[in-house]
Amino acid sequence: MKTEFEFIQYIKKSFGLRAVGDDCAVLPKDDSTDMLVTADLLIEDIDFQLDWTTPEFLGHKALAVSLSDVAAMGGNPVWAMLTVGVPTGLWNTDFLKRLYAGWHELAAVFHVELVGGDLSRSPDKLVIDSIVGGNVEKGKAVLRSGAKPGDRIYVSGRLGGAAGGIQLLRSSKQMSMQAEERKPIARLLRPLPRVELGRYLLKNGIASAMIDLSDGLSTDLYHVCEASQVGAEIDASLIPVDTDLNEFFGSDQALALALNGGEDFELLFTASPESTSAFSSKEFSHIGTITDKSGVVELTDRDRVVALRPSGYRHF
Amino acid sequence: MKTEFEFIQYIKKSFGLRAVGDDCAVLPKDDSTDMLVTADLLIEDIDFQLDWTTPEFLGHKALAVSLSDVAAMGGNPVWAMLTVGVPTGLWNTDFLKRLYAGWHELAAVFHVELVGGDLSRSPDKLVIDSIVGGNVEKGKAVLRSGAKPGDRIYVSGRLGGAAGGIQLLRSSKQMSMQAEERKPIARLLRPLPRVELGRYLLKNGIASAMIDLSDGLSTDLYHVCEASQVGAEIDASLIPVDTDLNEFFGSDQALALALNGGEDFELLFTASPESTSAFSSKEFSHIGTITDKSGVVELTDRDRVVALRPSGYRHF
Repeated sequence: MKTEFEFIQYIKKSFGLRAVGDDCAVLPKDDSTDMLVTADLLIEDIDFQLDWTTPEFLGHKALAVSLSDVAAMGGNPVWAMLTVGVPTGLWNTDFLKRLYAGWHELAAVFHVELVGGDLSRSPDKLVIDSIVGGNVEKGKAVLRSGAKPGDRIYVSGRLGGAAGGIQLLRSSKQMSMQAEERKPIARLLRPLPRVELGRYLLKNGIASAMIDLSDGLSTDLYHVCEASQVGAEIDASLIPVDTDLNEFFGSDQALALALNGGEDFELLFTASPESTSAFSSKEFSHIGTITDKSGVVELTDRDRVVALRPSGYRHF
Repeated sequence: MKTEFEFIQYIKKSFGLRAVGDDCAVLPKDDSTDMLVTADLLIEDIDFQLDWTTPEFLGHKALAVSLSDVAAMGGNPVWAMLTVGVPTGLWNTDFLKRLYAGWHELAAVFHVELVGGDLSRSPDKLVIDSIVGGNVEKGKAVLRSGAKPGDRIYVSGRLGGAAGGIQLLRSSKQMSMQAEERKPIARLLRPLPRVELGRYLLKNGIASAMIDLSDGLSTDLYHVCEASQVGAEIDASLIPVDTDLNEFFGSDQALALALNGGEDFELLFTASPESTSAFSSKEFSHIGTITDKSGVVELTDRDRVVALRPSGYRHF
């Protein structure tokens, strides 16, 4: 069966689409600025479970995932639209007011203005489409396609927490949730988009390619390699596995969550060795190097080197 | 129970939203241009039935409804995003390829470029969010709020056809569909957005306020009156009821379809008596006059004057 990535390639080729394929589309705005625009669809029972979250967290997350796409281009979010399909049962409660309140609380942090959207009835599932527009210096948006052999590979933050949160929610009854479980679960339900970090990496000319970790490190790194026509080697011992996972998972499982889990919304970027003198490596983890083996991602795990297949989240 | 319009008012007030409430949001682009942006959500079994349409028609319609919003501001559509949530059953067919083909055929007519979107799995229903961006001369977008007492009220085209199409589809078996039934059904399934008309009305400074007829004349005229803080009187005998309805519906029912049916995607606009000298009235129907009775819409039907309540389509 075809994957969603194959289908997007088919559409790109069939219709000669130039702007499709990065975290955001880059469109000309004015003499000094490009516009960024992105859309993210969240569907109940596919992308979220209503009994695992709150309306406020869901509103927050709907915006966060799109802000993260803008962050991954080094851009500055400016405006947003929110499209919601609501089952009648939820319409008759305060759910939607609370969802918009959670959305707006995060929007206020980044001075993002809600300018439109749509509101529709849905037969059974809640559906949210989050659209964000932003600005970036003309010609400077950090694409997935700029990685060069020899560039170092970095990630921000710690990985696997959100995926660990899903595992904990699957195995726990919410009422008996331990305090220690709350950190990974918070990573899942209330991710913080790395907008300032993306801006910093662009402003200082550090990142040669960038993507946000939404599908999972193995898949997202593969996207960068594919777009840049390069390969990558990364070292398992350098991957910053979320320390909050230690209590619940063995080290192999925690590593698998960090590699394939997705939804951490940290940034993965590449940078030439020269450009990295500009920043303190404390803020980022250097996990490997870009190679000239196009499309091949290799993981060194203790003594073994294994091919790392894109094993993150896929809808199809 | 609150209506969707009340909820949007609540959100506007709660968060101080300035750009929400017209067919498109108007955002600054550059020194001479504003950007327009709009989103329209279509959900299976709410906004469309899969057994009433084809994938190509559905792709066409998803784009058409958003182009119609740009038309209603006098704008020029430029780019689009398409977000689709697909049940697994449809994913494993050529449905999506055909949907994109229908979308793209209409996009090519208006030179609209697909720049992004999202693709997700959906548990059971097909979900489409159509996003379109466009340009308009700075400060010139035709808003709903510009109607003045004494302005004439016009509509383009003929009304009620799409709503008649729904009635015919409800009562017919598709296989036994008569050739004569196809015209109203085509109005419903393959609407043509009035982009050139909207441009013409803006360029010639004709329209003081404008909206597209998506919810139905009675509701959409009410939106204009509310936004402009005016009233309206229209004459039933002047409403251009779709002549293709004559075979299937009595004149009272056909008038009701034209008043409350929605989905015709014609344009409703107001114009001062002076400005209308610029155009041939053959292209539009003059159906009434704007009054100073704020929020009151009156319909003259033969000898009677009745208050016309907004009775078009509502999700809630």
